[in-house]
Amino acid sequence: MSKRYQVVGIGNSIVDILSHIEDSFLTQNGVERGIMQLIDKPRAVELYSKMGPAKEISGGSAANTIAGIAQLGGKTAYVGKVKNDQLGDIFAHDMKAQGADYDTPRATGDAHETGRCMVLVSPDGERSMNTYLGWSEFLTPDDIDPAQMSDTDWIYLEGYRFDGPDSHEAFAKAIQACKGAGGKVSLTLSDPFCVERHRDAFREMIRKDVDLLFANEHEIEAMYQKGDLDASMAAAAAECDIVACTVGAKGAYVLSGDTKVHAPATAVQIVDATGAGDLFASGFLHGITNGHDMQTCGRMGCVAAGEVISHIGARPEANLMALFKADGLV
Amino acid sequence: MSKRYQVVGIGNSIVDILSHIEDSFLTQNGVERGIMQLIDKPRAVELYSKMGPAKEISGGSAANTIAGIAQLGGKTAYVGKVKNDQLGDIFAHDMKAQGADYDTPRATGDAHETGRCMVLVSPDGERSMNTYLGWSEFLTPDDIDPAQMSDTDWIYLEGYRFDGPDSHEAFAKAIQACKGAGGKVSLTLSDPFCVERHRDAFREMIRKDVDLLFANEHEIEAMYQKGDLDASMAAAAAECDIVACTVGAKGAYVLSGDTKVHAPATAVQIVDATGAGDLFASGFLHGITNGHDMQTCGRMGCVAAGEVISHIGARPEANLMALFKADGLV
Repeated sequence: MSKRYQVVGIGNSIVDILSHIEDSFLTQNGVERGIMQLIDKPRAVELYSKMGPAKEISGGSAANTIAGIAQLGGKTAYVGKVKNDQLGDIFAHDMKAQGADYDTPRATGDAHETGRCMVLVSPDGERSMNTYLGWSEFLTPDDIDPAQMSDTDWIYLEGYRFDGPDSHEAFAKAIQACKGAGGKVSLTLSDPFCVERHRDAFREMIRKDVDLLFANEHEIEAMYQKGDLDASMAAAAAECDIVACTVGAKGAYVLSGDTKVHAPATAVQIVDATGAGDLFASGFLHGITNGHDMQTCGRMGCVAAGEVISHIGARPEANLMALFKADGLV
Repeated sequence: MSKRYQVVGIGNSIVDILSHIEDSFLTQNGVERGIMQLIDKPRAVELYSKMGPAKEISGGSAANTIAGIAQLGGKTAYVGKVKNDQLGDIFAHDMKAQGADYDTPRATGDAHETGRCMVLVSPDGERSMNTYLGWSEFLTPDDIDPAQMSDTDWIYLEGYRFDGPDSHEAFAKAIQACKGAGGKVSLTLSDPFCVERHRDAFREMIRKDVDLLFANEHEIEAMYQKGDLDASMAAAAAECDIVACTVGAKGAYVLSGDTKVHAPATAVQIVDATGAGDLFASGFLHGITNGHDMQTCGRMGCVAAGEVISHIGARPEANLMALFKADGLV
């Protein structure tokens, strides 16, 4: 009997606050270019007061991935914490309106707000992310429904969500329920600095439980410290079934056992790089949950990533399935 | 001695919730195409629950106009009510970050929230607006600072703001302070249905106090009911110094006394018509406050309008002054 879900994702629930900036804004305000920095509320208030007019678009790494899978018609759900405030309403609306289930209980306490990320987009499309996690940080095992985790083919875990006191336990609970019912586990390493913060815990999870590992070249090299991409991917593939590694404008490599395939990037004008890795995972997971080969999964990932970097915001706007069809992938 | 401000605008403070839809969504949900409908909170909740993923971008008609003037380097301020909630924070941030002063006291009561408008954008770029005014409706004379209104060359009044119990008095207070100090008054008719609701009050204001009237062809015909555009514009010009009337793809006509000029529309791909009239007013007011002739004012209006309809959202994204330069207007 087929399961209720193909993919259930767990991650940080974030509303993105996107603004175009000149690179001088980054240096003047001590923002490191091209990475994600966690910031506290006073820093968030300070930075927001200095940045220009912005757009608000639902984000969050795993949430973007699940939105992409939902847009492709996948049976999917998302787990992550927001508050019962206006930004929480927006986040929840956008997830459900895209077709994903989303039932994580709302936080009600005034200690935090719904998480948000100030995404500063440089003229070349590179994005520098400044994240106030808010209530998203406080995802606990109580927010994980074992019945849901056992009723999905795959779970998709966001590495970023390791930055929280009880989330390791929440992940463990989700993994146990999923694997116990024959499901599989995918993980994204999220960010090289996130890897630095959690290398040992990630490593143990990969060895024990991860079937499919997503990363970009910087993350996988930070993880395995082998000095080059091939060796790092090989080290990863020795520990889990499939390693899918994006390499920017060069597309992606997929390594499974001894088989390595390359998927070329889609040629697009980069407007905003936010969400490239997230949507690669959408396309790849769509492929794997619909029985496609590794090459096709990788190409689906690249097409979905290409769509999301061609406009501002990290959620898909064009019809991804139509793009797959245009590329002869379905 | 020059005044502190060139333009102070008063209007509804709105955060736009923008989503692309098929026209079938409008008929299925009883939304009239291409106009602004006022809705109550239950209807807002219902409609939001049915619409797809969205983007949030600060809006509000006069607020968009003031944002455009600020981006052009004008000395400008905005007056309009939001709550001390997250959407209110976003609205206030975007106005100040664009360079406009904005000091209207925040509402604190829980009876309403910050106003928002669900903007449903059709494939051809037409927008159908569904506005929950929230606290914006409750602008009172107490929110008007006579010192500010007497220290500006122009005030700019949003017709939509007539939909509120105390706002007529607020407008009267602003007009009195402005005119008493030698300032001038501009008004936009906002929407044909808004004209129907307030025809007599608008008419009295135009006759007594308005120096510059903004409208589109539908609004001015609803106002003067002469059966055609020329006669309606002539009727308006008999009652105020300058009439600036946009006519969609045909650009705009400006009539002052016996002199009528035409400004052609800028050729652009229409992505989202939201804000076209608002940014026309930005460009026109920039022109008139910087000593340009009527023809140039009209062309500046058309260039600014052309920019804002070429992307989603009603606030300018490209550098308007650079566009004026490219068109030889400055």
